[in-house]
Amino acid sequence: MNTKLKQVIESMHKENIDSMIVLKPENIRYLTGFRPSSSSILILKDNPVLLASKIDREDASGRSLVNLEVYKEFKDVKNYLEGKIGIENSMNVETYKKLTGDFELETTDIVEISRAVKSKWEVENIEKALQIAEKSLLELEFSGTEVELAAQLEYNMRINDSERASFETIVASGSRSSLPHGSPTKNEVEYPILIDWGAVYNNYSSDTTRTIIETEKQEEIFNIVLEAQQTAIKSIKPGVKSSEIDNIAREVITEYGYGDAFIHSTGHGVGLEIHEKPSLSKNDEGILEKDMVVTVEPGIYLEGEFGIRIEDMILIKNRATVLNKTKAKLSF
Amino acid sequence: MNTKLKQVIESMHKENIDSMIVLKPENIRYLTGFRPSSSSILILKDNPVLLASKIDREDASGRSLVNLEVYKEFKDVKNYLEGKIGIENSMNVETYKKLTGDFELETTDIVEISRAVKSKWEVENIEKALQIAEKSLLELEFSGTEVELAAQLEYNMRINDSERASFETIVASGSRSSLPHGSPTKNEVEYPILIDWGAVYNNYSSDTTRTIIETEKQEEIFNIVLEAQQTAIKSIKPGVKSSEIDNIAREVITEYGYGDAFIHSTGHGVGLEIHEKPSLSKNDEGILEKDMVVTVEPGIYLEGEFGIRIEDMILIKNRATVLNKTKAKLSF
Repeated sequence: MNTKLKQVIESMHKENIDSMIVLKPENIRYLTGFRPSSSSILILKDNPVLLASKIDREDASGRSLVNLEVYKEFKDVKNYLEGKIGIENSMNVETYKKLTGDFELETTDIVEISRAVKSKWEVENIEKALQIAEKSLLELEFSGTEVELAAQLEYNMRINDSERASFETIVASGSRSSLPHGSPTKNEVEYPILIDWGAVYNNYSSDTTRTIIETEKQEEIFNIVLEAQQTAIKSIKPGVKSSEIDNIAREVITEYGYGDAFIHSTGHGVGLEIHEKPSLSKNDEGILEKDMVVTVEPGIYLEGEFGIRIEDMILIKNRATVLNKTKAKLSF
Repeated sequence: MNTKLKQVIESMHKENIDSMIVLKPENIRYLTGFRPSSSSILILKDNPVLLASKIDREDASGRSLVNLEVYKEFKDVKNYLEGKIGIENSMNVETYKKLTGDFELETTDIVEISRAVKSKWEVENIEKALQIAEKSLLELEFSGTEVELAAQLEYNMRINDSERASFETIVASGSRSSLPHGSPTKNEVEYPILIDWGAVYNNYSSDTTRTIIETEKQEEIFNIVLEAQQTAIKSIKPGVKSSEIDNIAREVITEYGYGDAFIHSTGHGVGLEIHEKPSLSKNDEGILEKDMVVTVEPGIYLEGEFGIRIEDMILIKNRATVLNKTKAKLSF
């Protein structure tokens, strides 16, 4: 049994959970090595079993580290369960209701908590995804439309061994850069060009933003965002509250008078999901730990004018280690 | 108020639901015209309101047909709710628990049921997505590796106005084609080449599979799958049970002795989601209706040898109308 699986089962015992139903594909991938393509169910107990759909059986049998059985209907699951049952917070109400009454159920995020702290192998995969993403950006010609830029970037990532784009690529230029999640249009790119993109390697994601600027006003705002980002990064270390890092970035931007224009949180964990624990946000009560991987991505968005965001990926050791190799201020 | 929104609110009244919480991005898109990029909440009642996150406010204000307010925390939602509350089956347990106790909750899939029957405008968007997907396939050179083919296909779709690939493109060739959801590898493509791909236009998806064959054995299996598909398509009309269409496709394949090798259901609805109501599967109890859009996609998978799947998109009128323009048997 692999180390992570063992740890999670130990956590179950500590919480007096006898069996746990795992449905989230990323959690199944984390614990079995196999990422299901259709509904599969991992039953965690002392002898875990992966119930795969027929459609996944052949692929799963070559990849799953956990014993495999084929299941037909959700109700079959009940035969594998005993005692107090752990369920994920992400389980949907429809499934929850099928189990309620028959079992004592307890929601738990022990798998997500385990996933927040990365193994050396996981960090290597994240670094590889990031390396693909950055290489693919640097191969771009910065001309044409936003859509053409996004298409070429995604093509480059694929050819450079990314399994897919880790999320919908954002290329938002000119005044559209004030939309934090602006999707690419057929407009010719103009400055600033905000690009938020990522690759996936072995199911692990990267997530980075670069904004390419031109005017003095853009540079002024860029430097404020950069200062906020660098100050936040320097404050990262094990034992610090996640919310404190958000505070620190926000204070810098607020001091310059742009507090209201920083309209999202400062960062988030990245791994098998593009957003996972921890959350670097105001209301998060978590504490940063060694070997977490997080983004730090403050931004200033001036509606009708432009927006700037700078996002790097950080591995937490005794201090923050920036995983990105490309500098924040790019010019082409 | 648009027609769909009005219909859904009428359905709520019929079920004695006073307010409904809509969280699924596709459902919000369907009822407001705006697809949120981060967590947003639509409250359905006689005066519906869309609670958008700050990050989406600017974009939503230009697109939402429903009054917009910015929300900060989930608990703010409670101020908008009254009486018996409808919730989606897809709501997660974490959110469900925040509401339990304070409100009488009832799960309902009235939005998904409404979505299954498409308006003329929705069909036009689906047709446009399909047209982009097919054009992009025909522009391909069928050489290189599976990954190169997938990369080029996705690039073509982007350039031809697709917002993204509607799901992870499947290019599975040679013996890998026996994996119904085989992801592309760095192997040079060999026959058969199974490609399952789709485009997205105005948030509406297409979904098609073509398998390009070479040998006589492949052609023999191809013809069985095609016969199953055509027989199933001919049986589609309003009033027929979804499960009956699955039965019909399965019977043809079973008669030729390959019943055990058809390891998935026959089809599914497509629209704002790649899999939505109805499901053309054995245990589905639904009835087909006019203006539904479904896939019909039987397959035979011979482990260690190869697999064949043929998937077209069907608009249900008095009979089935095939939306695809490319023929099932392609050669390049």
